Amino acid sequence: MNGNRFDEASRHCVIYAVSDSAGETGEAVVRAAVAQFTNARTEIRRRPFVTDKSHIAAIVVEARDEQAIILYTLVLPHLRETMAQHALRDGVLAIDALGPLLDGLEWRTGIKPEYRPGLNHQLDADYFRRVEAVEFAVKHDDAKDHSGILKADIVLIGVSRTSKTPLSMYLAHRKFKVANVPLVPELKLPDELLRVPRSRIVGLTIGKEDLNQIRKERLKALGLPDTAPYAAPDRIEQELTYAREVMDRLGCVVIDVSRRAVEETASLIMEHVRNAGVQPF
Amino acid sequence: MNGNRFDEASRHCVIYAVSDSAGETGEAVVRAAVAQFTNARTEIRRRPFVTDKSHIAAIVVEARDEQAIILYTLVLPHLRETMAQHALRDGVLAIDALGPLLDGLEWRTGIKPEYRPGLNHQLDADYFRRVEAVEFAVKHDDAKDHSGILKADIVLIGVSRTSKTPLSMYLAHRKFKVANVPLVPELKLPDELLRVPRSRIVGLTIGKEDLNQIRKERLKALGLPDTAPYAAPDRIEQELTYAREVMDRLGCVVIDVSRRAVEETASLIMEHVRNAGVQPF
Repeated sequence: MNGNRFDEASRHCVIYAVSDSAGETGEAVVRAAVAQFTNARTEIRRRPFVTDKSHIAAIVVEARDEQAIILYTLVLPHLRETMAQHALRDGVLAIDALGPLLDGLEWRTGIKPEYRPGLNHQLDADYFRRVEAVEFAVKHDDAKDHSGILKADIVLIGVSRTSKTPLSMYLAHRKFKVANVPLVPELKLPDELLRVPRSRIVGLTIGKEDLNQIRKERLKALGLPDTAPYAAPDRIEQELTYAREVMDRLGCVVIDVSRRAVEETASLIMEHVRNAGVQPF
Repeated sequence: MNGNRFDEASRHCVIYAVSDSAGETGEAVVRAAVAQFTNARTEIRRRPFVTDKSHIAAIVVEARDEQAIILYTLVLPHLRETMAQHALRDGVLAIDALGPLLDGLEWRTGIKPEYRPGLNHQLDADYFRRVEAVEFAVKHDDAKDHSGILKADIVLIGVSRTSKTPLSMYLAHRKFKVANVPLVPELKLPDELLRVPRSRIVGLTIGKEDLNQIRKERLKALGLPDTAPYAAPDRIEQELTYAREVMDRLGCVVIDVSRRAVEETASLIMEHVRNAGVQPF
């Protein structure tokens, strides 16, 4: 439509994530790529459970009309082929996110893929272990029940606002059973913590200023004045010192969560526990 | 080593997921592909935070020696290039999972990518909304606090063992604030449910036999006899009838979770609420 692709209008791009299953993997790839274009206006359209050729043809036409990009994770070979043909005919950039690896694995193992969409989300033992781990994490969040400490693969300890809850959920999704225990100077430390192998305990720490900032925002979100002791530098200093003493006493690994996203901290924790020989279940 | 790549030994394949960030996206792609090879023995090795050329060279050599496949999600152009060069030189199949889409987006938008690893996990407003949603879901799991029903984007209702908790966590990760309410004939229905727009309520149902099976296994996991009323066909029938009546009365959408993975049910729920105009936050 427009010869100059560097004008304002062209900064916009629609990306279709097309899948013959739930479409999670494709959307993850699109999100990772889109994150690198902070100055572009991008729109992701997920098209899950696409299982017939006419549906694919229709999506390609839509994409053509909007000068969109398609990223597809299609397991069924005839759908992959249909997509490639239509995209070529209609001049649409369509990227096969799964095909090259499926082909590579076939070549290396000498085995044909199962070609069954949704196998990635099969209700197998692995799946139920993941569900169980999520339920465990919810049940043993915030040390609601100390018995969880002894049953957990990983015990997270740290002061309030060190990402214990989101980390527990993330690790649960990776099949680790996680309990988390808040460290508060006024609360007695659960005895169970002293009975857990220290390789299973992970201490979370954070910089004073970062914590101050996060807690102030937390108070604001709760509609409270940000001058409450919870966010006061003195109180924060006291809590962090106490937490450090506890972690020293337990001899556990300590990870600084300052300015780290949950995904990143979780990667570090998984590396640590795997090195220590802890496996999920 | 072996001329016949269809023999027993070749059914094994190692796949490296190499990233200059946490490596989540790449691992998701590898998992999706590997799931299609139920008869192969595959091993995924995650190599996150790879940020220098010599590290890449070392991984390629490892991969060559094991006849492994590499899938990489490298954002930095010089690392992508190094990977491609070394893989070519050492004869290793290395698949670029992010590059084609990064290039496509640059071409379509006329904007250069930021080339900053980890941007996908930036501590931005979006990130904090996700964290908040996870904390909300944990707090309002199992109707621990009825106030959550009115504040939620989505309220899940259903009898015990219809995946309410894992679904809540999954949807939270997609930034939806989710409360879930168990339906039990003997418990009074929270009044709040009658005050929520019905488009926000999602009823979860399940086949009798499936529920019977799941509950029996649940009892076994808890070390209880599987003959308890909880798993008895009569009791299940009664609960499901009651749940159906409640859902009819509320006029909410009903989704059957039988033999569906959480990812799949969650996709259906998100499609429903988006059609109904519900957006996360």
